[in-house]
This record gives sequence, structure tokens and C-alpha cells, in this order.
Amino acid sequence: MAGNDDSDIIEHHVEEEMEKKGARSHAESVSPFDREGHSGTQSSHRLLAYSDALISIIATVMILPVSHTKVEDNEELRESVQLLLTTKIAVYLMTFLIVTVAWAAHIRLFQVIVRIDDSLALLNLACMMLITFLPYTFSLMATFPKNFLGILLFCGCVMVMGIIQSVIVLYAFSRPFLLNEQIQISENQTFYKHHILKVIMRVPLMCFFASIFSFIFLQLSYVLLAIVIFLPYISKSLKWCRSKAIGQVEETPDSMLFYTYLPNEPLSKDRVEAFSDGVYAIVATLLILDICTDNVPEPAVVQRKFGGSLIAALQGYGPEYLAYFGSFVTVGLLWFVHHSLFLHVTKTTRFMGLLNTFSLAFVGGLPLAYQLTHEFPHNSRNELEAIQISCVIIFFAGIFQLAIWVVALYNEQETLHPYVRYGGREHVFMLAKLALYPCVALGTFFLTCILSKFSAPIFHLMEITVPFAFFVLRLLVRVALALLRLIFCPDRPDQRSVVEEEDDETRVPFNALVT
Amino acid sequence: MAGNDDSDIIEHHVEEEMEKKGARSHAESVSPFDREGHSGTQSSHRLLAYSDALISIIATVMILPVSHTKVEDNEELRESVQLLLTTKIAVYLMTFLIVTVAWAAHIRLFQVIVRIDDSLALLNLACMMLITFLPYTFSLMATFPKNFLGILLFCGCVMVMGIIQSVIVLYAFSRPFLLNEQIQISENQTFYKHHILKVIMRVPLMCFFASIFSFIFLQLSYVLLAIVIFLPYISKSLKWCRSKAIGQVEETPDSMLFYTYLPNEPLSKDRVEAFSDGVYAIVATLLILDICTDNVPEPAVVQRKFGGSLIAALQGYGPEYLAYFGSFVTVGLLWFVHHSLFLHVTKTTRFMGLLNTFSLAFVGGLPLAYQLTHEFPHNSRNELEAIQISCVIIFFAGIFQLAIWVVALYNEQETLHPYVRYGGREHVFMLAKLALYPCVALGTFFLTCILSKFSAPIFHLMEITVPFAFFVLRLLVRVALALLRLIFCPDRPDQRSVVEEEDDETRVPFNALVT
Repeated sequence: MAGNDDSDIIEHHVEEEMEKKGARSHAESVSPFDREGHSGTQSSHRLLAYSDALISIIATVMILPVSHTKVEDNEELRESVQLLLTTKIAVYLMTFLIVTVAWAAHIRLFQVIVRIDDSLALLNLACMMLITFLPYTFSLMATFPKNFLGILLFCGCVMVMGIIQSVIVLYAFSRPFLLNEQIQISENQTFYKHHILKVIMRVPLMCFFASIFSFIFLQLSYVLLAIVIFLPYISKSLKWCRSKAIGQVEETPDSMLFYTYLPNEPLSKDRVEAFSDGVYAIVATLLILDICTDNVPEPAVVQRKFGGSLIAALQGYGPEYLAYFGSFVTVGLLWFVHHSLFLHVTKTTRFMGLLNTFSLAFVGGLPLAYQLTHEFPHNSRNELEAIQISCVIIFFAGIFQLAIWVVALYNEQETLHPYVRYGGREHVFMLAKLALYPCVALGTFFLTCILSKFSAPIFHLMEITVPFAFFVLRLLVRVALALLRLIFCPDRPDQRSVVEEEDDETRVPFNALVT
Repeated sequence: MAGNDDSDIIEHHVEEEMEKKGARSHAESVSPFDREGHSGTQSSHRLLAYSDALISIIATVMILPVSHTKVEDNEELRESVQLLLTTKIAVYLMTFLIVTVAWAAHIRLFQVIVRIDDSLALLNLACMMLITFLPYTFSLMATFPKNFLGILLFCGCVMVMGIIQSVIVLYAFSRPFLLNEQIQISENQTFYKHHILKVIMRVPLMCFFASIFSFIFLQLSYVLLAIVIFLPYISKSLKWCRSKAIGQVEETPDSMLFYTYLPNEPLSKDRVEAFSDGVYAIVATLLILDICTDNVPEPAVVQRKFGGSLIAALQGYGPEYLAYFGSFVTVGLLWFVHHSLFLHVTKTTRFMGLLNTFSLAFVGGLPLAYQLTHEFPHNSRNELEAIQISCVIIFFAGIFQLAIWVVALYNEQETLHPYVRYGGREHVFMLAKLALYPCVALGTFFLTCILSKFSAPIFHLMEITVPFAFFVLRLLVRVALALLRLIFCPDRPDQRSVVEEEDDETRVPFNALVT
């Protein structure tokens, strides 16, 4: 892999350009020849954007019931967190997990089918409706874990979705002009069709068995469903074991392009970005919804308690405003880091997508964490814990973003823009951007452990400082580099080679982090 | 305008293609020369997509407090609707209006600034935070209409936003490589800068006066704010009056490209689509959130009331499920119609954007309407009214979509793909797609007026039939055309010319509708 040179990337880019132009031209009539043949054919671009928006909202919005659970001021947070954990956080995490699995399947399907027509658009909408219904089945499962109805409903949805997806595949293969060009010109289309159908039908089949077992032995159903989620990983490791036991099994090279479930299987970068944007956007706006409904005082109360002074009445909501500000700024800046990173990513792989999903799952928890920070009396043990939980969530959201970059660096010739590779001119700056939030969160966490009395001021100071840190980050990095230069090699004259040198120096701790 | 031929459109497309490629290449290193000069420069594509997502969520999510207002079963809907109307619907509509105005300003700004760097991205995020805070100021205004605090907060937000936008403009003009190519190569950049700054600062200036008057004479502040919203229309009509009175005032042709506020000023089609997608997606998912929180019975209640039978307990929620199904299907299909329409729109104008906003405002009200349909006892007067309100909302959402097409047809050489122009082969089919929902809604409305006893079954039948109607719409249109042919000209032999003929026939009622 390391032997590849730049021409690969350029080739890859040109291919991508061509593909995009091809897809667009259908919608915009620049190259009319396809349209002439099949007038109903359309670019799938907007359908996918809409699906991404729907799926990202559904994945994230289940945090709302969690954050609306009333926490009593008197009891310790530990108990109330356990109370929250039992059902609602479980529903949130299960929804996030399953929905992202469904989303990955959707990406795969529409990497094969690159053009759509009206029927496919309507079938896709039906699929989306079933996905948005899944959180309800989880709520039922979480509330009535011993009743078979929740699991039956869930399996029913998944089975119907499987059937619709199969219909989509069969329909698309009956009209080959809808397919990816690679498959269109391929000779073994039938092989592809069967391979894809086999992969798609695996999950509904498992669900069918799970729904049968739900009548007999409920626990087994849950085990089967867990297997469904980790199915690709299990089948991959089984294959790996077999290949070690029997020897290298060579697959048809043709089948390796789609539905491979290899960690470096390409994932549409546009869709990863669209999905992430959706999650970041809904998380950033969730808190203002709460503020609008809960933090407008009743006119009667203002008259009675505060003598008609609205300002006095609103002063009590100060912590809420601060929580909103902190939450929005953190989510916004995490999006900013994500945006900067993906600007320099040229190819997204499945493993990077997985890490991105982990990061987003933590981002989804942010509004909850911030809401907790202002719900408890000042200097209480609960407040300290809420602040520390916030720090942990920010840390993990940031560290998984950093992990995406680290993974990309392993295969940098294929996945990264030259500027952010080892020795590239933006390399150190990107590292600083990605490392800022994890470092700050870690620092705040330990500071609040030591100075537990000042935990709230420290946390709020952090919230306010970080945006400015991002504004002057380029300057900060330059100053840090200059300092490093002064300490380690004070007599180097050439500016350019010095920067090169510093890149080498920052590479050392980075490698240590990787290994 | 009608004298333009096809070459214009093709030229327009090629230009668009070039622009897109140019914008992309910055991010993807295909043409590295710009990057070499200014390494921090980035394509603004994703920043705008994220802003669109944020703004569309904020515009729509304020319907949630409205639909969460508890309506008593006993009283008549009229009273409760009036109770709703007073504050929460006002907040929703004001938010939707102001946020779409801010969004239009944002589009304009980023049609001039086509590339961004880190500082611009961060400034834009600050702007977004202020926009998401606006609904709260409306909530305050609606709850305390006689207190100056709400209006002061609102004006403060708008003024800070104006300052940030001015900083963005100044920053971008100090780095001309960030600007639109037309302005980059133009000689009177300073004129542009002053023109744009003048337009941007108009609104904060009005808000400044409004905030001063809020201390003295509150009503005047509200009037000033209303003027702010309709400022472009007022200034346009004033200009029109002046030009009629004094004679045609010729403006510098160079200044006519951006910030003209003419009805046919181009509006970025990508952004109109992204904003619409966001609204449709959030509306489609709002109801499942309610269902997940409200329609999972308590385990204790199930045990006591239904003897532990979950199925029996869930049967009571039947109407809710039906409302969810109806709401999702209607929103999904309205999105589908919107998607089909915009596939064939080649250029979006400001007037089309306005009509689209009206359509979206009604779409945002759909979940509320559907929730009302199942909240009242069967065959009550309330139920009938809720169903009729739903029909009216669907009708207006659909009719504004149709209006977009009608407006586009007026200038079809520039704005429409040849297939959907008069006599194009998809013309009738597009008309059928766009007219289906308004017709069905109107039909249902009158049917429920006549057969008021069967209003609920009629409405639910409509919900279930419409998706299938879309599936077989192409067939239905063909059958209808064949019937028309049989009736009016039974002895025409040539199939092709017959289709041409039918297009002419359908043109007649269409023209009648326009004039």
C-alpha cells in the first residue's frame, strides 16, 4: 500500500469527478442520451440527502425522552442516573446502533444503484417510514422486556424492510441503466444480484427465527437480535479463522467491490458528511427547544413573585442560558473539527465510518450532559458528577474524531490529502485542531477532581475559552513550534527546513500514541 | 425573454458545472493552484449544508410546543384553537418567517462569498447560534407582549448578527480569492462592498431604532420590526413608484447581479433543496417522538387494567398509529412531489423561493393537524373540524408547490427543463403529480362537508389510497389521456402527434388557472 504513488489518488479523484458529473448530468440534461432512453431516470443525490436527514434525526432524537426525565434535586445523581440508564438510555443507544446499521446497509445499496426513478423513490420512502418506526418498538422492548410483542413488532418491521429492499434490488437489476457503471458493464450481473440479495436477506431471516423463538424462549430472541447487529463482524472473523485453518481462500476478485464488509470497503464520503451534519444540527438545536418550552415564566407567577419584573424572573434561568451556550458552542466546534478533518479526507472507509458513528453517539449525549450540569444546586456532589460526565462525553467525542485521522494516516496515500499527511504543511495544525477538545476535556476533568469546590467556574471558563482558542489556533501552533525550535535546535537558520523538522518532532509523540 | 433559445440554458448549465467543479476542486485538490496560494481556503459547500440543516430545524421545531398544548376533550375545538392561536402558533409563524428571512440573507451572502476559511466558518457558527436563539425571544414576546425585554433581546441578537455579517463581508473583501469570480474580476469591488454592507446594515439599524423606541413607545417597536421583514418589498415598491413618477431610473448594470431583491434574482437551487429537505425530514419524524414518549403504557397500568395483556393495552392507541402513518405518508409524498418538481427546475428565483417557503410553512403544521384528528371522540364536531383543518393544510401545501411550477412556466426558457415545458413529454405527468394532493384534499374536504358522519373513514381511506395513486400515476395519466382522445378526436391515428395534441388540450385549463 505504501508503494502507491500520487497518480493513484489523482486517478481516484478523476473517477469521482466523472461519477459525480455523470450523476448530475442526468438531472441537468447536459448529456441527454440517457434521458432519451429512459425518461423517468433521475439522479439519486437528493433522495440520499433526504434519507440521511431522516435517519440522522431519528438516530439522535431519542435522547430527548432521556433528557426530559425529571431528576430529583434531593437524591444523589448515582441513583437517578441508574434510573435513567434502565430504559431510556438503553432505547437511545439501541436506536442509534440499529439505525446506523440500517443506514450503512442503505449506503451499500445505493452505491450499487446510482440512479433512481419514481418507483424506487417511493419504495425508499416506505423503507424510511419503517426505520422511523423502530424507536417505538425499542421503547416497548425496554418497558416490557418480558413481553414478546416488542420483539415481534421489531422483527416484523425488519422483515418488511428486507422484502422492500429485495424488491428494490430486483427492480434495479431488471433495469440495468439504474446500476453502478462497474456492474452495468460487468458480465456476471446475475452473480452480483444473487450476492447482494443473499447479504440483504440474511438479516430478515435471522429476525424471522427470532420472532418464532419469541413465542417459545424469549431470551434466545434477544441473543439472535444481538447476533444480527454483529453479523458482519462475526462472519468476517469466521472467514478469517477458516482461512487460517484451511489456508488462503481466494474469492472472485469481481465480488470484492461491494458488500465485502472489509474494514477498508469504501463508504460514500458525501453520505457520511450528510449524516454527521444531520446529527450535529439536531443536537445543536435540541436545547433551545427545551428552553423555549420550560424557561418562559408564567405571567401570573412573574406578577406574584417578582412584582412584575421580568428581568428579575429571568435571572433565575441564568444557568440554563449558560448550558445552552455551552452546548451549542461545543457541538458547533466539534462539527467544525469534523468539517476540517473531512475536507482533507479523500476516501472514507468502513472502519472510519464506524469510528465516526461512535463519535456521533457521544455528541448525541451532549445536550443531556449540559442539561444535567445546571439542574443541581451549586457545589453539590451531583453538580460535580454532571460536570465530570460532560467532560468524559466531550473527551470521547473528540478522541474518536482523532482516531478517524489516525486510521486515515495508516493508509494515507489513499485516504488523505497530501497537506495533512506526515510532513504535509497542515499536518501539525490538523493534529492541534483534533487534539484540542480531548486535551481540554481531560484537563478540565482532572482540575475538577483536584479543585472540586471550583468545578463549575472551571467548567464555564473552559466553555468560554475554547472558541477563542480555535480562532487563534494557527497562531498558537506557530508559537508552540517556535518555542520547540528554540529549545531543541536554537541555531537552525532556514525557516522552511525548520518547519519540516518540527513536523518530524511532532511525529514522535504521535507514533507513540498509535502504537 | 421568450425570444431566448435553448443555447442559453445549455450555457447556463455549463457555467453551473464549471462553478461546481471549481468549488469542489478546492476541497479535493484536483486543481491545486488556488490552494498553493492560500492553504486555508475551503469549499463552502458543507458549511452551507450544515447551516441549512440548522436553520430548517429551528424554523420547524417550534411547532412542537404548539402540538404539545393539551386540548380538553369536552370543550369545542374553536375555543381551544383560539387558545392555541394566541401565543404558540404566533411564535411558530413568527419564527418561521424571521428564520426564512435570515436564511435568504444567508444565501445572498454566500452567493457572493463562495470559498471559506477557518475564521469565516467560526464566524458563521456564531451567526447560527444567534439565529437558534431567536425563537426564545419570540416566546418571551408572545408571553409578555407588553414588556420591552423580549423585543430588546431580539433586537440585540439581530444587531450582533448584523455586526458579524459585516465582519464576514469585510474579511472576505480583504481576501478577494474568497469571493465569487464575477466580483473577483470586477473593477468596482469597492462599490460592491459598500452596496452589500449597506443592504446588510439596514436591518440592524432598524432594530437599533426599535430597541430605543421599546423604552418609550412599545407599539412603534413592533411596527418597526414588521417593516424590517417586509423591507425588501417596501423598498422595491417605492423604487417602482419613483420610476413611474420620475421616469425609468437606470441602475448600474453591474450592481444588478446580487442583492437586487428582484423577484427573478437567482437563488441557489442546492440550498433551497437542502432547506426543504431539512423541513420535510424534521416534520416527518416529529410524530414518532411523541408516540415514543406518550404511547408506551405503564407496566403497572397494563397489569391492573388489562390483566397483563399488552396487546389489549396497545389497541387503544390505534388512532395514534394511524395518525403517524398518515402524517409520515403525506409529508413523504409531498417531499416526493417537491423532489420531482425541482429535478426539472434549472434555475430557482427569489419568487419561487418565497412560494416554496409558504408551502413549507403549511407542511410544518401537518403533524399538529394529524395529531388533532385522533385526539377527539369519534363523530364529534371537533373531529370533523380537525379533519377539515388537515385537508386545508394539505391543500395549501400542495397548491403552493403547484404555484412554483406555474411561476416557473412563465419564464420556462430559463427556469425549466425542456421536458416539463408546454408540450414537453413530461408536462402532463408533472401537472398530474402536482395537482394530485390539492385535488384529493379539496375532494375530501367537500365530501366530509356532505357526509359529515363518515368523515373519519373518508379521511383514512384518502390517506391509504394516495400512496398507491402515486405508484400508478403514470398509468392513470395515460388512461386519462386515452379517454380524452377517445372523446374529443376518436379518429386520430398517430400516437406521437396525439400526445402532442393532448398536451395542447391540457394546456387550456392550465392557462385558465393561471389567468
